[in-house]
Amino acid sequence: MQRIHFNEVAPRDGFQIEANFIPTASKIALVDALSECGYAKIEVTSFTSPKAIPMLRDASAVMAGIRRAPGVEYTVLVPNLRGAERALAARADELNLVMSASQTHNLANLRMPMAQSFAALCEVIGMVDGRTPINVSLSCCFGCPMQGEIAQAAVIDLASRFADLGARGITLCDTTGMAHPTQVTRMVNAVHERLLSVHPQLQLTLHFHNTRGIGLANVLAAASAGITRFDGSLGGLGGCPYAPGASGNICSEDAIHLLDAEGYTTGIDLVRLLAIARTLPLTVGHEVPGQVAKAGRTCDLHAPPAEVDALRRQWATAYGSPGFSASR
Amino acid sequence: MQRIHFNEVAPRDGFQIEANFIPTASKIALVDALSECGYAKIEVTSFTSPKAIPMLRDASAVMAGIRRAPGVEYTVLVPNLRGAERALAARADELNLVMSASQTHNLANLRMPMAQSFAALCEVIGMVDGRTPINVSLSCCFGCPMQGEIAQAAVIDLASRFADLGARGITLCDTTGMAHPTQVTRMVNAVHERLLSVHPQLQLTLHFHNTRGIGLANVLAAASAGITRFDGSLGGLGGCPYAPGASGNICSEDAIHLLDAEGYTTGIDLVRLLAIARTLPLTVGHEVPGQVAKAGRTCDLHAPPAEVDALRRQWATAYGSPGFSASR
Repeated sequence: MQRIHFNEVAPRDGFQIEANFIPTASKIALVDALSECGYAKIEVTSFTSPKAIPMLRDASAVMAGIRRAPGVEYTVLVPNLRGAERALAARADELNLVMSASQTHNLANLRMPMAQSFAALCEVIGMVDGRTPINVSLSCCFGCPMQGEIAQAAVIDLASRFADLGARGITLCDTTGMAHPTQVTRMVNAVHERLLSVHPQLQLTLHFHNTRGIGLANVLAAASAGITRFDGSLGGLGGCPYAPGASGNICSEDAIHLLDAEGYTTGIDLVRLLAIARTLPLTVGHEVPGQVAKAGRTCDLHAPPAEVDALRRQWATAYGSPGFSASR
Repeated sequence: MQRIHFNEVAPRDGFQIEANFIPTASKIALVDALSECGYAKIEVTSFTSPKAIPMLRDASAVMAGIRRAPGVEYTVLVPNLRGAERALAARADELNLVMSASQTHNLANLRMPMAQSFAALCEVIGMVDGRTPINVSLSCCFGCPMQGEIAQAAVIDLASRFADLGARGITLCDTTGMAHPTQVTRMVNAVHERLLSVHPQLQLTLHFHNTRGIGLANVLAAASAGITRFDGSLGGLGGCPYAPGASGNICSEDAIHLLDAEGYTTGIDLVRLLAIARTLPLTVGHEVPGQVAKAGRTCDLHAPPAEVDALRRQWATAYGSPGFSASR
């Protein structure tokens, strides 16, 4: 079956919205534990201003402290030139640049228009000059919470510009959970026709949120249409700044449990991953949205209540075999 | 587009697991509010033993107190003959009988083997004698949390026996959220071939749980395969006895929001329904899993932060138009 490459973003995208600082040692321990689970990439941290995101002020220390497992790429978010220099110094395996496909969201989030963001990221790509692979994450590709619909063609044009500049990968992000499955299928088909046909080596990743409960349905739609790379966040950590109390990123272990059930090969050790997921509430100090860590995998059966055996015997004594054949 | 008939089960299936008694007047008010939303059916209560489920001890009072809207069917759960007599006296529009497709679950839940449950429900069907339509809900059709896999053929055989006995409808329940989409597609295809081909008038309903985050993906798989009737629970009320903290029933408003986005016609007034869903935490005294009530519909846009306009002007002054055309 189709091989799916899964990227874990909890240490960056998940932690960054948390209210209470997570100690550097806990971050390193989480990344080290995740390294043993079979992920393609782990987004470790963000080289952003410590004032903007105090939670990730220890980015260099975390990168220096983690143990790097063979076969896993350690990627970091990079907002600008200064961040790129720090990321290179930290020997990140990939620089993940970010801008929005929505003008309004770009202004609200990055405080500059898309044209200026694009120019700034071009500068970063020029400075890195091929020394480290570049991924570009495009926010709001399936809709903007302020602006509404975002034209599919504009998203693909923006992605194409970065591919032309030598980006190894593009991530199409549904930043606030506005996508729905048929829209995802249309986008993926258009990406195949207009982007991957020109750049067949481009790593195309989809990044979904579960803000409206549709995240995993979108993953399946994308996988059915041929997407083989997904971001997810352990426990569904993340949240949505526009929807207090709503879910954020899709939950990695729930998505992997579903992809496994549907016959995809994720290469993830789900038992090990669930054990890590079950420690998350302690790490962040609150419950998390992930379901499979609470419910267990579908194949994790429960012992029947003690009285079931007694009931079986009792009914068998009274009426013969308690077996019931539904066939007529 | 395809018309979907949606059934609301929160007043019965959702409330029954709640720890604190919900006053009769609150139950009546909820059913009356739901009656204005466009549901095909509302499962109002259960005529079970008040000792077994104290929450629903006011079944007759609730049925007597609700205002019945034209076009909505008020169905009630009925476990046995005594319950059926009370349900008929309460002028229920439908009696919803229940047994499990899993021998172990039937013993654990109903304290008798499937053969005895089947015989007991046959007695009820005989007593009702066509005066009121019968629906039969079959638990664990997609797997049993104690027994594991349940053979698809056995589920369809059991459903067929009830259809042969004159049941108007059958509900296939994924009682503890074990189904996954390709399994659902296989089941629905088999149901079309082996059950609906013989009983074309049979109302076939699917009842999913979101225990492992897959509920809405299963709804879409079933709808794609031609299923037009679904159960859901407002706010995702319900829970799972085998998985403390995990979700229970799929959330009605989240499912309807998704089906609307995917182009199905649900006939539900989602704005009105969301307003009711937002009152649920007050009614039950805790947060509920539903997402769209927290996040709003995809089309409910947010105002940009105040500084966005200033930023737009500032950048326009410095660099000309802040517009960015991604096309090359």
